[in-house]
Amino acid sequence: MQRYFVKESAKDEYFTITGDDQRHISKVMRMAPGNFIICVDSKGNSAECEIAEITDEKITAKIVKWIEGSPELPVQVTIVSGLPKGDKLELVIQKGTELGAYEFIPFISARSIVKWDAKKADKKLDRWNKICKEAAEQSHRTILPAVTAPVQLQELIKLAESYDQKLIAFEESAKEGEASMLSQTLQQLKRGQSLLIVFGPEGGLTEQEVTALQEQGFITCGLGPRILRTETAPLYALAAVSYHFELMG
Amino acid sequence: MQRYFVKESAKDEYFTITGDDQRHISKVMRMAPGNFIICVDSKGNSAECEIAEITDEKITAKIVKWIEGSPELPVQVTIVSGLPKGDKLELVIQKGTELGAYEFIPFISARSIVKWDAKKADKKLDRWNKICKEAAEQSHRTILPAVTAPVQLQELIKLAESYDQKLIAFEESAKEGEASMLSQTLQQLKRGQSLLIVFGPEGGLTEQEVTALQEQGFITCGLGPRILRTETAPLYALAAVSYHFELMG
Repeated sequence: MQRYFVKESAKDEYFTITGDDQRHISKVMRMAPGNFIICVDSKGNSAECEIAEITDEKITAKIVKWIEGSPELPVQVTIVSGLPKGDKLELVIQKGTELGAYEFIPFISARSIVKWDAKKADKKLDRWNKICKEAAEQSHRTILPAVTAPVQLQELIKLAESYDQKLIAFEESAKEGEASMLSQTLQQLKRGQSLLIVFGPEGGLTEQEVTALQEQGFITCGLGPRILRTETAPLYALAAVSYHFELMG
Repeated sequence: MQRYFVKESAKDEYFTITGDDQRHISKVMRMAPGNFIICVDSKGNSAECEIAEITDEKITAKIVKWIEGSPELPVQVTIVSGLPKGDKLELVIQKGTELGAYEFIPFISARSIVKWDAKKADKKLDRWNKICKEAAEQSHRTILPAVTAPVQLQELIKLAESYDQKLIAFEESAKEGEASMLSQTLQQLKRGQSLLIVFGPEGGLTEQEVTALQEQGFITCGLGPRILRTETAPLYALAAVSYHFELMG
């Protein structure tokens, strides 16, 4: 069943769907009253709904039943990606959303080759959030991850204060055979808490960046002995979090 | 340092490099005698080498020192991918190699939409193995994973006999909340043993396929409560194996 993230909460057992989703349901999916969809509200509650009415402006869908059981990771994982080349961040956002990420923060790192063009910023952010939304719907998420505007190091340090655990995925840690900080950190993390992980761009983070983050309580961790590309490392980390919290007995 | 998988073993402390790699070193990297590279032999041993001589046919590289410590997963993981649409298998091969896969077996599954064209088979296999080789070099692997020609169900069942553990990543298991078979299987698996995991194409495996595999001792397992795309699920499984064996204390 197709799912839609609906901004407005349900009123009197009905969801009201407008904008892009209205068009998707009526024009792309060519649905009619009587068809079924799943509506997810802003709090992450999802309900099976029957389409009651379709107009040019909105779709009204009646709640048939609320769906129980959460597909969300029991901890909130924020992925901070050093701005990579090309469309690699799109892969991180799409696959990271499937794998349960809570939030994506692009990071204008010293070695980011891509220059962030403030003029094109809105368009880029729109595109990233659209990829997020599509992946969230496809993978049956009930929380819609957000992609924020790219931040500089000082902003990153400031916003990191509110997270319970803060890690840096650091290639040098992997080379030195560091093999337990991710696992130790996940063991300390309690359900409902938040974890922020910083990943470097292609050339990695600079020593200065790592030191500055370490001074703010960030811990470096390796992700195994193989060198992972900048877009692969966040997917590894998210899968490890899922395995740790969702699959281990 | 650039790494090269060399077919011939070292003789008298020298590696001999021919073919594509000869061209890569001399024409693309424009190296000269005195430059350093890493040579990995067919057994997975790697050595830091100094280029001694470059001719139009071959490069001779003198071993400076053998490198200790293995970047390989302690268990051999074979990824069986139901042939997906487009170039998704290329993503599985590239990222799966980074994440430590031992072998890739494309599977002509009942719901595979792509028709396997035997005429174009050699070209396709060459391309897949080239992607494998590049990813293996980049991620500092010492074993070069192989991509085999696509197999049918009966061939898959036959070749699966030689593996220690056999899993099916099954969406229905995920929906039913099955959350421990992957973890239980990894706990039973000893270092040096082999694990084969089957992933469906876009529409998933058919009930008949799952039953046929189960009759041969395959076990179904979920990969968490989110629905993963066909190309994302193998990456999740490989990261989970690495986390289990390489990062957990």
